[in-house]
Amino acid sequence: VASRTSGAPERASHLRHPRELAALKARLAEIADLGAIGALLQWDQSAMMPPAGAPARGHHAATLEKVLHERLTHPELARLLDAVEPWAAGLDPDSDDARLVRTTRRDAEKARRVPAELAAEIAEAGALGEQAWLRAREADDFSLFRDALAHHLELRHRYAACFDVEHPYDALLDDFEPGMTTARLRPLFEELRAALVPLVAAVADPDAPDTPAALRGDFPVERQRAAMVELATPIGFDERAFRLDPAPHPFAMGVALRDVRLTTRYEPGDLSPALYSVLHELGHGLYEAGAAPALDRTPLATPASLGVHESQSRLWENVIGRSRAFCGWMLPILARHFPGPLGAMDAEKLFRSVNAVRPSAIRIFADETTYNLHVVLRFELEVALMEGALAVDDLPAAWDDGMLRLLGVEVPGPAHGLLQDIHWGAGMIGYFPTYTLGNLIAAQLWERLRQDLPDVEEQLARGAFAEVLGWMREHIHRHGRKFEPAELVRRSTGTDVRVAPFLDYLRSRLDDAGLLGRTSAPSST
Amino acid sequence: VASRTSGAPERASHLRHPRELAALKARLAEIADLGAIGALLQWDQSAMMPPAGAPARGHHAATLEKVLHERLTHPELARLLDAVEPWAAGLDPDSDDARLVRTTRRDAEKARRVPAELAAEIAEAGALGEQAWLRAREADDFSLFRDALAHHLELRHRYAACFDVEHPYDALLDDFEPGMTTARLRPLFEELRAALVPLVAAVADPDAPDTPAALRGDFPVERQRAAMVELATPIGFDERAFRLDPAPHPFAMGVALRDVRLTTRYEPGDLSPALYSVLHELGHGLYEAGAAPALDRTPLATPASLGVHESQSRLWENVIGRSRAFCGWMLPILARHFPGPLGAMDAEKLFRSVNAVRPSAIRIFADETTYNLHVVLRFELEVALMEGALAVDDLPAAWDDGMLRLLGVEVPGPAHGLLQDIHWGAGMIGYFPTYTLGNLIAAQLWERLRQDLPDVEEQLARGAFAEVLGWMREHIHRHGRKFEPAELVRRSTGTDVRVAPFLDYLRSRLDDAGLLGRTSAPSST
Repeated sequence: VASRTSGAPERASHLRHPRELAALKARLAEIADLGAIGALLQWDQSAMMPPAGAPARGHHAATLEKVLHERLTHPELARLLDAVEPWAAGLDPDSDDARLVRTTRRDAEKARRVPAELAAEIAEAGALGEQAWLRAREADDFSLFRDALAHHLELRHRYAACFDVEHPYDALLDDFEPGMTTARLRPLFEELRAALVPLVAAVADPDAPDTPAALRGDFPVERQRAAMVELATPIGFDERAFRLDPAPHPFAMGVALRDVRLTTRYEPGDLSPALYSVLHELGHGLYEAGAAPALDRTPLATPASLGVHESQSRLWENVIGRSRAFCGWMLPILARHFPGPLGAMDAEKLFRSVNAVRPSAIRIFADETTYNLHVVLRFELEVALMEGALAVDDLPAAWDDGMLRLLGVEVPGPAHGLLQDIHWGAGMIGYFPTYTLGNLIAAQLWERLRQDLPDVEEQLARGAFAEVLGWMREHIHRHGRKFEPAELVRRSTGTDVRVAPFLDYLRSRLDDAGLLGRTSAPSST
Repeated sequence: VASRTSGAPERASHLRHPRELAALKARLAEIADLGAIGALLQWDQSAMMPPAGAPARGHHAATLEKVLHERLTHPELARLLDAVEPWAAGLDPDSDDARLVRTTRRDAEKARRVPAELAAEIAEAGALGEQAWLRAREADDFSLFRDALAHHLELRHRYAACFDVEHPYDALLDDFEPGMTTARLRPLFEELRAALVPLVAAVADPDAPDTPAALRGDFPVERQRAAMVELATPIGFDERAFRLDPAPHPFAMGVALRDVRLTTRYEPGDLSPALYSVLHELGHGLYEAGAAPALDRTPLATPASLGVHESQSRLWENVIGRSRAFCGWMLPILARHFPGPLGAMDAEKLFRSVNAVRPSAIRIFADETTYNLHVVLRFELEVALMEGALAVDDLPAAWDDGMLRLLGVEVPGPAHGLLQDIHWGAGMIGYFPTYTLGNLIAAQLWERLRQDLPDVEEQLARGAFAEVLGWMREHIHRHGRKFEPAELVRRSTGTDVRVAPFLDYLRSRLDDAGLLGRTSAPSST
């Protein structure tokens, strides 16, 4: 058994596993189980629960959260961690056990630093804020949400004060993207903005519809699921280990490595919501399912961050799902299910249609070219609010001004402006940047993958996805949370997160779809 | 604050609520929440979970069970209970608070008496035994399950030894029917057997099909749910607070008072599995939903026992669901959904068909007349096994002999004999009697209800169920677990559980359906 006062790491590495390691892992397995139960509760609440069950579910979730917090801050966990750390310091720093101890220390330290009362206040403000946000969005009136947002900001400042951070926003980012800082994000987002604003102005088609014209038509809802399953199965969907259910706001939830729940939304007159949300959520789901079995029931079995998570969903939704090769493969399958609208469709037309560019007020309807500008705006406003450079009362004007400046879009009102997303309603500040990080990481991974699999386009064209998935499993999925996201990106792509691969990818896609040659200036600038 | 050494109860009753009461209730609310989460996990496992999720779910359920056990045996809970008991002793003994303290003491005492290691051994043996039972049933070979059953019995003896009971079987019964004893059950079951064996011999129709002939035909599965919801809604089903999903083995689960999950089974060629399982599970679900809101998130909010639970399901399935009045009401509704098989059906024919009597080897297919003899046999064998009067190796012969003696049925093999039910597989000994208690209590409640609502048949005939449900809410549902089952039966019906009301009800139903006049001796005797 390693002693807390044992000597140098070199010596400790020769010791056998300390007795405390097994006890620590047993406690961590229970914490992982409770986390999995929490995921199931969330899935059920969003996809299954009868509406009248909501108040009781609030109690169930709060109690589970309390039990989890108690276990993560339990003195015995701290004692076991103290006991194994000297031993772990002598291990290969990349070994599962060394990383397990390091990540557990990080989680326990974060849990310990936030007083239970503040955590409870934040949870309560989240629920109340969501209700105020709903009412405000309904009434298209920001003043109904103003106080809730001001309260969120005050709580977030108190939260940030629990940590030693350079910038208060860093403490918020860390909950979604461990290790990410404001200082590292700023230049990335500035570079993106500088490149995207003129690109959007150059290629936008103000006449393009909100969703791809090629996928509009008569798509009976009761026949969409079978088509989606036929597309998803060769990618990795498997009814033995996955579910696919309808939900108003599509999401994916991993309950266990072999129990992954996807949801999607079916529209009778438009196949694109189901198609692209299934590809997106499948990307998330495959990541949830892909951790190495050796990490199961440890804190390392879950994804590294929301940014890395989003890289997987955007890869399948956009990089692959809107590629010419993939469009060519999926069209005959979709046409067999929907001969009416798609029987005479041309693959090239479908490819161009799913890559149309049109600035709009709503982020979730945004194409790949305009999408990140929605995120840039939110990031700039969040940082300004946290710094006090922007007052809550000035937020609506700053929003509308930003939308005009970045995208040339006139916002019709707050419901279609700063009230469109639930995130601020629930108090989630620092979340939005992970969407753009996901887009950047996806392009960076794709760049590297194409070097390793030079014939990948040809594979996609014939519906062979095993090597792509295998590459992601090998470089991303199997590691779970073993590496911090920045380290994982360096290990898998050779560099830190960068903007260039995304811009290269985007320009090449736009060029391919015949959009870069456009000469007429878009009317919205 | 009441002191632990305070004087007589009369004095204590004048004290204000002790400070510890609120703290005790807060702990109990969390225990209730964890129980609700456990119910959701079970529902999901049986109705939703992808099959490959099973091993992980085993871990999740075991961890949740451990957290629950820790909370129920926590020293602080014991301290709070000690602190409030002197005060509670001065309360009206029928008050919610007095019953809350009494029931909590009972629950905590039961949890305390069973060592955690034995509880874990029993849980593990349950999972392993279920697998052995599945293999044995598959192979139609009892020898594959023999050792698992012997192990269950040994564990159950160790479990019973944790309690001061007259008969070891009493400790097992108490888990399903609190307060019930072998000594009280024996005369009830003897009386039933003495009456039913000759009755079955007199009225059985060996040519009757397994399920009602009137409900066989072409019933497309995708159209059955809408018909079931139309029948269930006037009874009390409400999509805002209930779900109805398909599951291979129908069940009902209460997650919260306003979150109740029903499941059913759809057969394309037979409407009766869906119809009668929906009525059955709806009866369970209405009980789960019916506790007084004041009891919510306390240990009193759940049903009193499995026997009382079954009284509610059997009431709607059989007493009401197979009555002439109900058949007359439901036939036009069902005929509208299924004009093919039911458009020309006669209500009297339907009524007779759903009340046919035919002894069969399988309990879950049994009609109301033969059903309880299946339970009598299981009860007699369980008691003999626990007493050591019957050896495990002699069980198959005893089963086959009992089926012949009680029902005149030749058992084709163990898969259709002693291996037909999951209960023994999972180690649940002492559970079966609650089915018959449910039938007896249902008839007893119905007898009393008819005195209070003399025009109930006329109400049923026009689909007016509010007064019946209101009566059950008032006399049974709202009390939750506040009263022990025997006390609840006495309060609601005026007497202890008796056999006579059931026999009166059954004879009257058989007579009504034209079966008591039958003169030809059944061929199976």
